[in-house]
Amino acid sequence: MEPVALLGGNTPDHEKVIGWQAPPLKFGVGATREIGYELTRAGIRSVLLVTDPSLAALGLPSQVAKSVEQEGVSVSVFDRSAVEPTDASCAEAAAELSSLDVDGYIGLGGGSSIDTAKMLNLLLSHPGRAVRDYLNAPVGAGAPIPGPLKPLVAVPTTAGSGSECTAMVALGVSGLRVKTGISDRRLLPSLAVVDPANTLTLPPAVTASSGYDVLTHACESYTARAYDRRPPYPAPADRPLYVGANPISDIWAEQALRLVGRHLRRAVLNPYDLEARTGMSQAACFAGMGFGNAGTHIPHACAYPIAGLVRDYRPDGYPAGHALVPHGAAVVATAAAAFEFTYPTSPERHLRAAELLGANLNGITAANGADVLPATLLSIVADTGGPTGLSRFGYSRRDLPALVEGALKQQRLLVCCPRDVAARDLERILTDSMTG
Amino acid sequence: MEPVALLGGNTPDHEKVIGWQAPPLKFGVGATREIGYELTRAGIRSVLLVTDPSLAALGLPSQVAKSVEQEGVSVSVFDRSAVEPTDASCAEAAAELSSLDVDGYIGLGGGSSIDTAKMLNLLLSHPGRAVRDYLNAPVGAGAPIPGPLKPLVAVPTTAGSGSECTAMVALGVSGLRVKTGISDRRLLPSLAVVDPANTLTLPPAVTASSGYDVLTHACESYTARAYDRRPPYPAPADRPLYVGANPISDIWAEQALRLVGRHLRRAVLNPYDLEARTGMSQAACFAGMGFGNAGTHIPHACAYPIAGLVRDYRPDGYPAGHALVPHGAAVVATAAAAFEFTYPTSPERHLRAAELLGANLNGITAANGADVLPATLLSIVADTGGPTGLSRFGYSRRDLPALVEGALKQQRLLVCCPRDVAARDLERILTDSMTG
Repeated sequence: MEPVALLGGNTPDHEKVIGWQAPPLKFGVGATREIGYELTRAGIRSVLLVTDPSLAALGLPSQVAKSVEQEGVSVSVFDRSAVEPTDASCAEAAAELSSLDVDGYIGLGGGSSIDTAKMLNLLLSHPGRAVRDYLNAPVGAGAPIPGPLKPLVAVPTTAGSGSECTAMVALGVSGLRVKTGISDRRLLPSLAVVDPANTLTLPPAVTASSGYDVLTHACESYTARAYDRRPPYPAPADRPLYVGANPISDIWAEQALRLVGRHLRRAVLNPYDLEARTGMSQAACFAGMGFGNAGTHIPHACAYPIAGLVRDYRPDGYPAGHALVPHGAAVVATAAAAFEFTYPTSPERHLRAAELLGANLNGITAANGADVLPATLLSIVADTGGPTGLSRFGYSRRDLPALVEGALKQQRLLVCCPRDVAARDLERILTDSMTG
Repeated sequence: MEPVALLGGNTPDHEKVIGWQAPPLKFGVGATREIGYELTRAGIRSVLLVTDPSLAALGLPSQVAKSVEQEGVSVSVFDRSAVEPTDASCAEAAAELSSLDVDGYIGLGGGSSIDTAKMLNLLLSHPGRAVRDYLNAPVGAGAPIPGPLKPLVAVPTTAGSGSECTAMVALGVSGLRVKTGISDRRLLPSLAVVDPANTLTLPPAVTASSGYDVLTHACESYTARAYDRRPPYPAPADRPLYVGANPISDIWAEQALRLVGRHLRRAVLNPYDLEARTGMSQAACFAGMGFGNAGTHIPHACAYPIAGLVRDYRPDGYPAGHALVPHGAAVVATAAAAFEFTYPTSPERHLRAAELLGANLNGITAANGADVLPATLLSIVADTGGPTGLSRFGYSRRDLPALVEGALKQQRLLVCCPRDVAARDLERILTDSMTG
């Protein structure tokens, strides 16, 4: 047989290539006890453990620190990571810790603590650069991380962000009332330690909100503009981390949807249901392995201004200090309307997502199924006490221009939408999302 | 709510923890062209490209070398990796290359070339140690790899071993007429570049044999003794790389079975069916992500003596120089009998595996389904011209004692069998596998 002239051609088919990565994983009840062993095995002698005040009060961080120290690894603790961190909260923490010299990091908590740990690793490993340099364009300069980071072990205590499995952080931007992020392969944790027992103490409202994040991660990445239906990239370096829906991310998204459909209601309604907590911990992590490579689209793009422009909404279960829309509540708020908008691009994917979440497709065809996934999402949100519309957060039609403008800034996400999204489309989706 | 005393307990529940890892992946037609870019991005300036003579004759290695050199990376080529490598073939190659100084490795070829590249990386990074030191006990000393290896990019040109995604090598042992392996997390490639176009030139017999390896990887890991149904490990370091079937390996195994059921016959019967080649390349890689963490059992344990004791079988499509049972043919030869033996441990898993491969389960229950998976496997093998029994390789009942003895040496694999396996069980399975 003749050789295939594989490398000779000039076809710009970079867009046919899928990039995919995930950290090594330790999953299961008891995995937390093995952090010290893993650090020692990797030759790490000192770490900064990054966590938040609520978790510190519950005692888990000091238990983890003690068990890690028993393996001979010295531990410094930073227990003031902000809920929904910002460029300023990270820069301030980095300034405070500038004289610290450690071999590695542990991020212990929800997405906020893990993302703060990622940012401290970045800022302390490459001092002299501002957070803004790295933030995604057009908010920041989108500069690549200039060199290696130190090993980071991510230990989630929520089943939500999936940050333990992704190469990105989400950050508020001070002064701009907008959220954005940093995506860079170097931000991928060196190890994810996912122990469902660590989520047993999450209050129901936080369990629900974290779960909505998982739900939308999976739905958005599953319906994202596919990797092979995009214009060619000039070179491999131009291919984004978010390559679009692909056969690998689909596997993770489908499994995450199945698990959320089975376990989210149970985990919210009975916090001590360890089987449901295990299912949701898997779902969060699996969704992260999917969307972290495929991307998210409209609900996440809209969530950034929804969180950023909040005036005085103070949700149950979160620190009382300041107004806040939890990330999961912000993303799910527009999900039903968003998936009605994207339905025509792939009725079969939208229906399959609904079915995996538990919907009955008897009598449903592509022609009559546009509301099945939206109704399925709304039913899960209703059963778990979630937000009944943007008005619940204090928004009204007067806020539409600012919300639309904020969402349009998230072009990095909107290019993943399976159809083009104009300002008027976003306005319609946000309007339809005002009441539940 | 009170903190859960997670770390305080003394329950030896290490066996509840799943370890899982996979290399970063570039998948798709055209991915081969991006090897140079990836090496440069990782700061690698020189590599050894390891491949085999047949592939070198087809020209792909020189095309890859040229495209990598165009990115400014210098390339040395070793194009004499042995089909089914041994400790001796690897040691000899390492001795020949002992003065080489490179930053990284490319393994380009089937499992044999990728495993040879892994071994050269090991032997040249830590000179002065014998291959036998690392080989799994009881054949070798099972010593852990003493320190870091250099980055290795695995580029499969078959859809078979899944070595691009696993932390192990399979090796024949000179003089002992047995095969075994080395398992160590450091053997995981730094990057897997899986380009289905590179498999288009595989002859049908090699496509079939490689495909049987994928098929059995997926079936064995899916039916392996589950991670949470094993005796406790004294410490995390005692947990083997092969932790048993688990919710993560199951995802990969199920998807691999689905893909093999759809694509293996097509890829064998029409080598230029790129869609089928893509499906099989995914299947091989996905099966590797599963079995590489879960483990394999009886068919792989038996395959080692089946390959090791061969006298003069010379298969189509392989170099004519010496007697050889291709690994995939060796593993599939006992699969039907092995899965009949393991059926009672989980009828639902065996039936589900058969269904994913395309079997019709109408009228089948746990009580009457023992032969469904065996029949499904035999049908795929028959349709693709595979071996019709061990007698085809020249074995007869006289060889049973030696085959059983060889299989029993693979305790590392046999502990993954979902039920205990005695010599008489292996004798029965091997006897039943003599004719197809």
